[in-house]
Amino acid sequence: MKTLFIAARSDPEAMAAMFRAELPGHDVVTTPPTGPVHYAVVGKPEPGVLAGLQGVELVLSLNAGIEYLLALDEVPPQVPIVRMVDPGLVEGMTEWVAAQLLAWHRNLFTYRDQQAAGAWRQHAELMARERTVTVLGAGALGGPVATMLATLGFQVRTWSRSGRAVAGTASFGGGDLAAAVTGADALVNLLPATAATTNLIDAALLARLAPGALLVNAGRGAAVVDADVIAALDAGQLSAAVLDVFRTEPLPAEHPFWAHPRVFVSPHVAAPTHARTAVAVMADSVRRHERGEPVPHVVDRSLGY
Amino acid sequence: MKTLFIAARSDPEAMAAMFRAELPGHDVVTTPPTGPVHYAVVGKPEPGVLAGLQGVELVLSLNAGIEYLLALDEVPPQVPIVRMVDPGLVEGMTEWVAAQLLAWHRNLFTYRDQQAAGAWRQHAELMARERTVTVLGAGALGGPVATMLATLGFQVRTWSRSGRAVAGTASFGGGDLAAAVTGADALVNLLPATAATTNLIDAALLARLAPGALLVNAGRGAAVVDADVIAALDAGQLSAAVLDVFRTEPLPAEHPFWAHPRVFVSPHVAAPTHARTAVAVMADSVRRHERGEPVPHVVDRSLGY
Repeated sequence: MKTLFIAARSDPEAMAAMFRAELPGHDVVTTPPTGPVHYAVVGKPEPGVLAGLQGVELVLSLNAGIEYLLALDEVPPQVPIVRMVDPGLVEGMTEWVAAQLLAWHRNLFTYRDQQAAGAWRQHAELMARERTVTVLGAGALGGPVATMLATLGFQVRTWSRSGRAVAGTASFGGGDLAAAVTGADALVNLLPATAATTNLIDAALLARLAPGALLVNAGRGAAVVDADVIAALDAGQLSAAVLDVFRTEPLPAEHPFWAHPRVFVSPHVAAPTHARTAVAVMADSVRRHERGEPVPHVVDRSLGY
Repeated sequence: MKTLFIAARSDPEAMAAMFRAELPGHDVVTTPPTGPVHYAVVGKPEPGVLAGLQGVELVLSLNAGIEYLLALDEVPPQVPIVRMVDPGLVEGMTEWVAAQLLAWHRNLFTYRDQQAAGAWRQHAELMARERTVTVLGAGALGGPVATMLATLGFQVRTWSRSGRAVAGTASFGGGDLAAAVTGADALVNLLPATAATTNLIDAALLARLAPGALLVNAGRGAAVVDADVIAALDAGQLSAAVLDVFRTEPLPAEHPFWAHPRVFVSPHVAAPTHARTAVAVMADSVRRHERGEPVPHVVDRSLGY
């Protein structure tokens, strides 16, 4: 009997019950056993937890981004790490980015502020087809998000390292980042945290956007140069920044993002992992592994995702 | 040469320039001429303006709702009134309803309020597929709106007088209104203002929704019993009401909607008529009329839309 150990921090017992239903004939535990652990389900495990395990065949990440696990460096190089790409995560991110784009596009917060002042004042409302959005990332998350924004009417460009084509969008790759963002009315970052994406969104990149553009970051905090975002907001180059991820989370109380009137602080809720869909995905990975089939979404550690 | 008279209140000269480009060979004027007017383009004309015109063959409304024109009673019964159904209006309404649904669904205003308090607190985030939305209206506006909400993942029901089927939704009609709304997590009103829709959304109807439901009204203000909405909010039966239309507009300063913490007052901006798309639609109606072809969206005065 193979053992699956859940090192999730929030409600591991509820997740264990779902795994037991999905994988009968497996021993599902929520505390580290003395014997071997064949499968480890991890979010952001405490240091030392993974290092103490023996016999691990697969590490199943509860997150799409696994830079925490790589930095922790407790998974031996020959053990595959499977990152989370579940329908719930993709749906959650798609809904959330659409919500933020549309709320900005249709001035929802402006009208909310006007209501507090008792003001009935109509602003010029553009149509989505009159606005261009650039999505950084064209993979499991960026692709569906970009396609949904196009379905909503926006003119959408995508950019990714590989230049992967996304239906309904103008796709850019590699060295064409400047072209991909030039003149865009909104920039949505969904890139994973890697050496290549750290500080990618800086003053020079923001200056290429259309004046008064929107920045949405739901990738990783390190992709954005915080001070450059503040400066672009204060100069009017950005009209708003919606940030769901930060270099340090929770965002420290003294960080200027909290009090800036044009920064919208979102506490890393864009694409939560929903146990009710994620467990099915992870159980499927286990079954594929046991049948000797390839497991999808194994991390390429040289790329970092 | 036929004369087209624009009685729009906001920037008729800009619209006139667009009409002249669309309809060469027509006399486009923005003040009532002494001779006949063949086509009258009207928003909410001052009383008496339409009554003074002679020879009118078509009245082209800048609005989708024409109850103001019918109440004004200055268009002879044999003169067709064409209501505005333009792509810009449909797109605008679709974007706006999607924006409001998603902003509520993903707690955007909750997180905004938390930011003001410096609070990093994650709330349980449902997926759109876990929420049911009922759209009242299944026509030129309700149909595309309902389909977009389904594309975004919501479980969507539609209800209309005729029970018209809308792709991707469960369609109800006529006497099945109670079934259509029972248990819904959100109710979106897009019905026209008619005798049959006045006070349709009352305490009894709201009580059928799921507890904590959202109400969105972008149809007409008279469809909603204001006091019943306030009572349902205060009782928790509604968690929020997003209202873009009101019995009196602008909403009077003393109305309790302004100060209610769970009412979102929107100043009738959901689906503005965009001259840049609407003029093309009206010019097309004129050309069809002159070729002797049927003109789309002529109002059935017995129905009121």
